[in-house]
Amino acid sequence: MCELLGMSANVPTDIVFSFTGLMQRGGRTGPHRDGWGIGFYEGRGLRLFQDPQASSESEVARLVQRYPIKSEVVIGHIRQANVGRVGLANTHPFVRELWGRNWCFAHNGQLAGLQPLANFYRPVGDTDSEAAFCDLLNRVRRAFPEPVAVEQLLPTLVEACAGYRRLGVFNALLSDGDWLFSFCSTRLAHITRRAPFGPAQLKDADLAVDFHAETTPNDVVTVIATDPLTANEAWALYQPGQWVLWRRGERVAEGRVDD
Amino acid sequence: MCELLGMSANVPTDIVFSFTGLMQRGGRTGPHRDGWGIGFYEGRGLRLFQDPQASSESEVARLVQRYPIKSEVVIGHIRQANVGRVGLANTHPFVRELWGRNWCFAHNGQLAGLQPLANFYRPVGDTDSEAAFCDLLNRVRRAFPEPVAVEQLLPTLVEACAGYRRLGVFNALLSDGDWLFSFCSTRLAHITRRAPFGPAQLKDADLAVDFHAETTPNDVVTVIATDPLTANEAWALYQPGQWVLWRRGERVAEGRVDD
Repeated sequence: MCELLGMSANVPTDIVFSFTGLMQRGGRTGPHRDGWGIGFYEGRGLRLFQDPQASSESEVARLVQRYPIKSEVVIGHIRQANVGRVGLANTHPFVRELWGRNWCFAHNGQLAGLQPLANFYRPVGDTDSEAAFCDLLNRVRRAFPEPVAVEQLLPTLVEACAGYRRLGVFNALLSDGDWLFSFCSTRLAHITRRAPFGPAQLKDADLAVDFHAETTPNDVVTVIATDPLTANEAWALYQPGQWVLWRRGERVAEGRVDD
Repeated sequence: MCELLGMSANVPTDIVFSFTGLMQRGGRTGPHRDGWGIGFYEGRGLRLFQDPQASSESEVARLVQRYPIKSEVVIGHIRQANVGRVGLANTHPFVRELWGRNWCFAHNGQLAGLQPLANFYRPVGDTDSEAAFCDLLNRVRRAFPEPVAVEQLLPTLVEACAGYRRLGVFNALLSDGDWLFSFCSTRLAHITRRAPFGPAQLKDADLAVDFHAETTPNDVVTVIATDPLTANEAWALYQPGQWVLWRRGERVAEGRVDD
């Protein structure tokens, strides 16, 4: 299994605090030693840091913790390899261009018997996760050769995700830099922070932050993670089969698929 | 104008020395203040570092200089913006997946009146360079929907590059992680280092390296740059219109297009 991290915010926000918590689970407080990656959108650009090494020992991870990149959408992942050997090509998040935007995807879980047709998007590595991502984008492109609003896209996304879930476990985050789509197969949690902001204490490292000092009253920041990252806040748990579409920190659509 | 850096080697080799030279030209010894980027292939994976800041002041550039990533193919670029504003989405190198491989591209020059059809690959940013890259990949995909050897691909690549050159200046590097294709419109230089290795002295920084101490007798390492990076070695200059295909440090094909 792996761990996911996502952020959607209405102002460029740094994710150093949450990232620091997640990174501990990559070999220190958790077993996810087989690589990590994080993608930060900056406008339409996407800054991607990845390392097939354990995040708790990664030089690049230390850079990201020191270097407060501000972003409105972030997708991160730490990996415990199941399918596909350890290596850069198998390290999440995965990225493809569709409709002139960078689409970024990370997955937690395992899929059995996914057999995508050789189509436009093809996996570079050999994980089931990247194969599912390519299959998902191929479905989107087949349904919509030209760009459409995400609301119009949702039935295609949800139907595809429901299908992957039937093949195993499919907790996933997907974004085009504007919206952040989250799908819970078994385990995913979220928290939305807004004024009045308070202090937060990481579960996995001796680090606290007072968000009040770091934010303005209008900020809205949602963080999504496999398991709650802080000990003193009320995280909400996704229901199995639940999906939520986030934009600028707010929940803009949601639903739940049947088992 | 911008500056290009490429490497093709027969063993995983670090490019710290050449990268250090290039980075000085990003705001210190050269005027290329509008971002920089470098992609390192690791197997089929591609590790991309980019920054819209001047390379001589970039925290990420300092990491790359400290952190000897070993790779067989590298493409780097520092930017002085002409077309397209300064920002991550306009920062080279550009990457797209084709045939299940990461294709990476960087360009030096300006193109006037490039009008690619809206097709499969679309630019995310607004540079002429990324538009040319997308157009090039669309041509390749149209000619070869399924993978072919690079030798079979060369006429398509060369014809496309000759066309871009007619629109302005088109010095470019392109790779799929196996081979490195280089096209010279006006200015490009290369050097192949092999045994007996000797010392080298950067032009742009007070830094020397003794490659003899860093290599084995079988290593073959070719470095390509807009201008020679070292003061005491004999770089070869590309002729205008010349292209060279490199693989594992060796020149495997070359040619020249007419004006």
